[in-house]
Amino acid sequence: MKLTRIVYTVFVCHTLFAQTVSDYSATTNAIIKASLKDSATYDRLSELCDTFGPRFSGSKNLEDAIDWILNEMKNDNLDNVHAEGVLVPHWVRGEESAELMVPHRKNLNMLGLGGSISTPRTGICAEVLVVKDFNELEERKAEAKGKIVLFNAEFTSYGKTVQYRYSGASEAAKVGAVASLIRSVGPYSMDTPHTGVMKYEDGVRKIPHAAITVEDAMMLQRMQDRGQKIVVKLKMSAKMFPDAKSRNVIAEIRGSEKPEEIVVIGGHIDSWDVGQGAMDDAGGCMVAWDALNVIQSLGLKPKRTIRCVLWTNEENGLGGGKAYRDAHLDELPNHILAVESDGGVFAPEGFGFTGSPKALEIIREIGTLLEPIGAGTIKVGGGGADIGPMKPFGVPQAGLHVEGSKYFWFHHTNADMMDKLDPQEVNKCKAAMAVLAFIVADMPERLPRVKKE
Amino acid sequence: MKLTRIVYTVFVCHTLFAQTVSDYSATTNAIIKASLKDSATYDRLSELCDTFGPRFSGSKNLEDAIDWILNEMKNDNLDNVHAEGVLVPHWVRGEESAELMVPHRKNLNMLGLGGSISTPRTGICAEVLVVKDFNELEERKAEAKGKIVLFNAEFTSYGKTVQYRYSGASEAAKVGAVASLIRSVGPYSMDTPHTGVMKYEDGVRKIPHAAITVEDAMMLQRMQDRGQKIVVKLKMSAKMFPDAKSRNVIAEIRGSEKPEEIVVIGGHIDSWDVGQGAMDDAGGCMVAWDALNVIQSLGLKPKRTIRCVLWTNEENGLGGGKAYRDAHLDELPNHILAVESDGGVFAPEGFGFTGSPKALEIIREIGTLLEPIGAGTIKVGGGGADIGPMKPFGVPQAGLHVEGSKYFWFHHTNADMMDKLDPQEVNKCKAAMAVLAFIVADMPERLPRVKKE
Repeated sequence: MKLTRIVYTVFVCHTLFAQTVSDYSATTNAIIKASLKDSATYDRLSELCDTFGPRFSGSKNLEDAIDWILNEMKNDNLDNVHAEGVLVPHWVRGEESAELMVPHRKNLNMLGLGGSISTPRTGICAEVLVVKDFNELEERKAEAKGKIVLFNAEFTSYGKTVQYRYSGASEAAKVGAVASLIRSVGPYSMDTPHTGVMKYEDGVRKIPHAAITVEDAMMLQRMQDRGQKIVVKLKMSAKMFPDAKSRNVIAEIRGSEKPEEIVVIGGHIDSWDVGQGAMDDAGGCMVAWDALNVIQSLGLKPKRTIRCVLWTNEENGLGGGKAYRDAHLDELPNHILAVESDGGVFAPEGFGFTGSPKALEIIREIGTLLEPIGAGTIKVGGGGADIGPMKPFGVPQAGLHVEGSKYFWFHHTNADMMDKLDPQEVNKCKAAMAVLAFIVADMPERLPRVKKE
Repeated sequence: MKLTRIVYTVFVCHTLFAQTVSDYSATTNAIIKASLKDSATYDRLSELCDTFGPRFSGSKNLEDAIDWILNEMKNDNLDNVHAEGVLVPHWVRGEESAELMVPHRKNLNMLGLGGSISTPRTGICAEVLVVKDFNELEERKAEAKGKIVLFNAEFTSYGKTVQYRYSGASEAAKVGAVASLIRSVGPYSMDTPHTGVMKYEDGVRKIPHAAITVEDAMMLQRMQDRGQKIVVKLKMSAKMFPDAKSRNVIAEIRGSEKPEEIVVIGGHIDSWDVGQGAMDDAGGCMVAWDALNVIQSLGLKPKRTIRCVLWTNEENGLGGGKAYRDAHLDELPNHILAVESDGGVFAPEGFGFTGSPKALEIIREIGTLLEPIGAGTIKVGGGGADIGPMKPFGVPQAGLHVEGSKYFWFHHTNADMMDKLDPQEVNKCKAAMAVLAFIVADMPERLPRVKKE
């Protein structure tokens, strides 16, 4: 207690006279030290993930988790803790399976893709046509009629490969397929299917769409290459229900001098309906939330408001990000910076930043202060899906960058669970978020925006 | 064709005068070159795995695969191609599932353990007691009655950790548990359960026994550590049928001078009923089989017989290894060496050898010839489960050693599929097996045995 008071005094004196980013060096070090002192953040993240399970839009799990978080945030004595209503899509995968029937019978581990229609109750049993990409589908379109098309697209980057998950069903339907499968969008597999959102093109017949594992997709490719007939039976009982009620979660440290000026930090509280969504993105939520707590625990009072937002429905609709923008339209001119963590809370490397050149310089100066924890690299371009809707309104954007080499191993799978995260790496992410948010919220100069033309 | 004949002549002349291991240098290099020339071995291994699926004892898959192999071996013009009958256990897992009911509902990816009894048709729904090891079970035995015991033993080595899979059910039953679960025996998981054989202790009540994933076992441990009540519902319809007929597969290159003296090389053709058993152990079978083909393709005629044996039922009974020993008892004094590949066909590093010091010296000399492909390291001690039954009869034993850092990632899982293997690594394993077998079968000196006291 005594120590805390001394620290408090040091900081208050210090920050009263802070004029430049480098003057925040001692404050930064104190935030880092306090962030790394124990495993409380990891433990609370575990409790959230273990107690409620994955938090899919429309699920009781998600709303129970949100209730718990709101209660915990109030117990943390954070300011202005509240929820804001959002209507979200409500898709339920139900029972589902894929079985190889020919040349031998084998259960194919699979996950239906979010938004897919169901199969008939007895399933769809059909020959399989394997194609590597849309070009090959075009070349072989005469063979596709009445078949299940498998897109066996090798993972290159997420951006390039995800198109088969997103648009594969309609492309397959256009050439007469009765269902479509994709090779899971991920660079490494241990029989680990990946789900994710898909979309039907207007005016095109809807067919069921699911992901099988990398292993099985490669097997079916080999079978086709050696001329073996392949028959698969796909059963899915997925159903889209009317939109459900969910909520964005908000907590703040109210600014001491310019409370109307806001630095937003956050992640998305919803996840897919598999695993625990520990990395994607309960961890991002937790480090933003506990960034407030570490700032508060040091007695630091930023001039501007730091607002933690946990957006709902990032995964299959972006409902939370859009609703936040709409509910806070009047405030957006005073949104100084929005920072999202949605790349996993592995060892932080820095931030990607989208904003004015002058602002970039300032963020880079803050980066130098984060070098002791390896989080000093500021790259041009960055943000996050949930803060994206604020971009057209001129709000500068930053996204936490981490050592993400295994991110797409676990992304949207049952393997995205707490064991994949490390307590100290989580702490470092928390420190990086807290330092960036605090300095931008506290420095005398308002982070300069791109000037309107 | 012309080249082959020249090569043939060179070798025949060469080997006629070969007196020491180093005289086999040119022959070794020719075997290595021929082994590495294309991906035919990998392709045939793929065809075996893709066409028939996993080859579990008692299954039609296994017998269909054996029929295909016998036919292919005959087409390869190998000598003495035939099968030898073996009675094998016939356990069928049937439908099975585990579901976390409290604190939230979650499907727990699982695999019943081979030999387990079923649950009642409606399943077993009970509270879970998590223990880290047998010591903790002993300490907490008063809490176990009526519960499902989960052994959350962290993977250290296979030998140390597998005891919970093998003996966990009976230990849990002794303290009143109604079922038992283990954390899958593996060092890394992407929601990947591992099966394997288990055994009930005589006179102890039998309870169902299954493996859940590392992720879920760690989750249940965390729940218990924070005082949360855990309820799991386990359903298994596993059934043991009467012993079924299977076969060991044999093919040879008949010795030109001492055909009654035999060098055995092989792997086990059965697998678990998951994945493809590509690494464990179709790959071992394929490299032993194609070792004969590469020797034959070069026109090499060893003085002694090289016999490829593909044992059945290694995984859950060792029926093939025991039956081979029993059917060939009279020949065992003339078994010069037995070599098994059952550690995966990743990049070969050498062999482990069990035999006389003089024989070890010779094997080490052969090792030096394998250094160009990195397979030169000969370690003391080694063999394989299927050749183990011949050990008490004095048969020297060698086991192929490979870069096995990921072997237990895939072992007994749905992830043990062809994509985990590399064509050139498979070729190098084939080369190492062929070189060792050929030199030991051809050198003037019979590999010396340990002298009987």
